Amino acid sequence: MTKNDTINVQLNHRSIRAFKDQTLTQEQLTTLYDVARHTSSSRFLQQFSILHLTDEKKRAAVREIADQPYVGANGDLFIFIADLYRNQQLRHDLGQDDGNLHTFDEYAQAVEDTVLAVQKVVIAAESMGLGAVILGSIKNDPVKLIKALELPKMTFPILGVQIGVPDQQPQLKPRLPIAQVAFENNYPKQFKAADLKDYDDVVTTYYDLRDANRRIDSFTKQVAGGKLSAPDHHRDEIAQAIHDQGLALDMK
Amino acid sequence: MTKNDTINVQLNHRSIRAFKDQTLTQEQLTTLYDVARHTSSSRFLQQFSILHLTDEKKRAAVREIADQPYVGANGDLFIFIADLYRNQQLRHDLGQDDGNLHTFDEYAQAVEDTVLAVQKVVIAAESMGLGAVILGSIKNDPVKLIKALELPKMTFPILGVQIGVPDQQPQLKPRLPIAQVAFENNYPKQFKAADLKDYDDVVTTYYDLRDANRRIDSFTKQVAGGKLSAPDHHRDEIAQAIHDQGLALDMK
Repeated sequence: MTKNDTINVQLNHRSIRAFKDQTLTQEQLTTLYDVARHTSSSRFLQQFSILHLTDEKKRAAVREIADQPYVGANGDLFIFIADLYRNQQLRHDLGQDDGNLHTFDEYAQAVEDTVLAVQKVVIAAESMGLGAVILGSIKNDPVKLIKALELPKMTFPILGVQIGVPDQQPQLKPRLPIAQVAFENNYPKQFKAADLKDYDDVVTTYYDLRDANRRIDSFTKQVAGGKLSAPDHHRDEIAQAIHDQGLALDMK
Repeated sequence: MTKNDTINVQLNHRSIRAFKDQTLTQEQLTTLYDVARHTSSSRFLQQFSILHLTDEKKRAAVREIADQPYVGANGDLFIFIADLYRNQQLRHDLGQDDGNLHTFDEYAQAVEDTVLAVQKVVIAAESMGLGAVILGSIKNDPVKLIKALELPKMTFPILGVQIGVPDQQPQLKPRLPIAQVAFENNYPKQFKAADLKDYDDVVTTYYDLRDANRRIDSFTKQVAGGKLSAPDHHRDEIAQAIHDQGLALDMK
C-alpha cells in the first residue's frame, strides 16, 4: 500500500455528525470554494453551484427536511446544487434557446459535476483537520427543500455537506472488501451472503454513534431489511420534482 | 488560503490524456481500490463497483464508444458502475424481493456513491504523482457499452477513469470564479455574459492540448454554442438504457 498525507486522509474518512460551536473562518471557506471550483467538469460546462446556509431559518428548514437534529446545528451547512440554470441564463443572454438543457443526459452530467465537487470539498475539509458529513437526507422532501431555498427551475439540490470542528471521534466504519467491489475485466454474476460472512461479523462489532452507541446490524441484514424495502419521507417524489424543475424531461 | 499537500493536489488538478507506456503496479492498484472502498456511501449500501479493463478487446470497445484515441491506450482504464445488482442478489439470497431497488431514488443514490468514489480515486492517483482523466464519453453509446462489458441488469456504467504516468503537462484549466459558483443563503436569479468578461478573456488564452495546441473559445461562447445545442453520438439513448437495465423505473 502506498501511503501519503492525501491517501491517509482518504482512508481515515469517517462521517462527523457532532461539531463544536464554532463556524469556519473566511480563509477556510475560501479554500473549500477554491478546491470546489477546480473540480473536473463534464465538457467544461461547470454545472454545479454551492449554497452556504448561514440563515437560521433556512438551516432549520433543511434540518426539518433531513429529519436529523445535527443538520444545520453546529458547523457550516452547504447545499450542492446541480445547476443548469446558470448556463441557461447565459444562453438566453446571448440570444440562444435552451438547447439540450432539459434532457436527462445534461441533468446527469450536472449531477456528476456536483457530486465530484462534494467529494473534493469533503477531502479538503478533512485535510485541514475539519470533520464533514455528506447529507443525502436533504432530498427527503425535495419540493419543500426547493421552496425553502428559493431555487429557480433548472436547478436541483443533490447533496448537503456539513463541515466543522469535530466534537466526536467515531470508529472507522468497516467497508466491503476489495474483492466485492473491484473486478478485472469481468463483472461477477453471483453474490452470496455466505461470501460476506467475515465482513458481516466485522460490521456487527462496529458501533454507530448515531444510534446511541449500539452495535449495528450486519451488512447483509441491512441490505435485506427495511432500508431497501419501504420508501420513507417524500423520497418517491424526487423524480417528479426533477421534472417539475424542468430537468430530465426526456426520461419519461 | 489554507495550503497543505492534499489541497495542493486538488488545486493542481488537470486532466491527463497522454500516458507513458506502463501500467500501474499491484501496489498502486490496491491503494486506489482501498481508497475507493472507503468512500462515503448513501445509507451504507455501498452501491458502486469498479471494473478494471486490461483485456484489449474490451479496452478497444470502450475506446470506440468514447471516440477518443487515448481511451484504453496507455495507462489503466477503469469503469465505475452504479451497482444495484450486488444488493439485489444478496436480497434474493436472503429470501427478499427487490424492494425499492427499481426506483429513481435508489438509482440516484447509487450514482452518487459511484461518482464520489471516482473523485476519491482520481485524487489518490494524483497524490501518488499519477495522472488521471474522468471519461464521461463512455456513455456515448450506453447500449453498446453495457453489451461490451457484459453488465447485468441493475448495473449502469457512469464514468470511466484512465490513470497512468503522465506524458504531458497541460496548463491548468481556468475555472469560473468563486463568485459565480458559491453563494450565501440566496441563489442569484441573474447571470449575465458581461459579468463573465474577465473570465472569458482568461479562458480564450488557455490552450487545450486535446485540440492541437489551439486556443479554445471563451466560456460563454462554449455555453452558447454547439455543446448544448445538439445531442451527439447515442447520448439521447441513455435514459432508455437506464430503464432497460431495470433502473429508475418510476421516472417515466
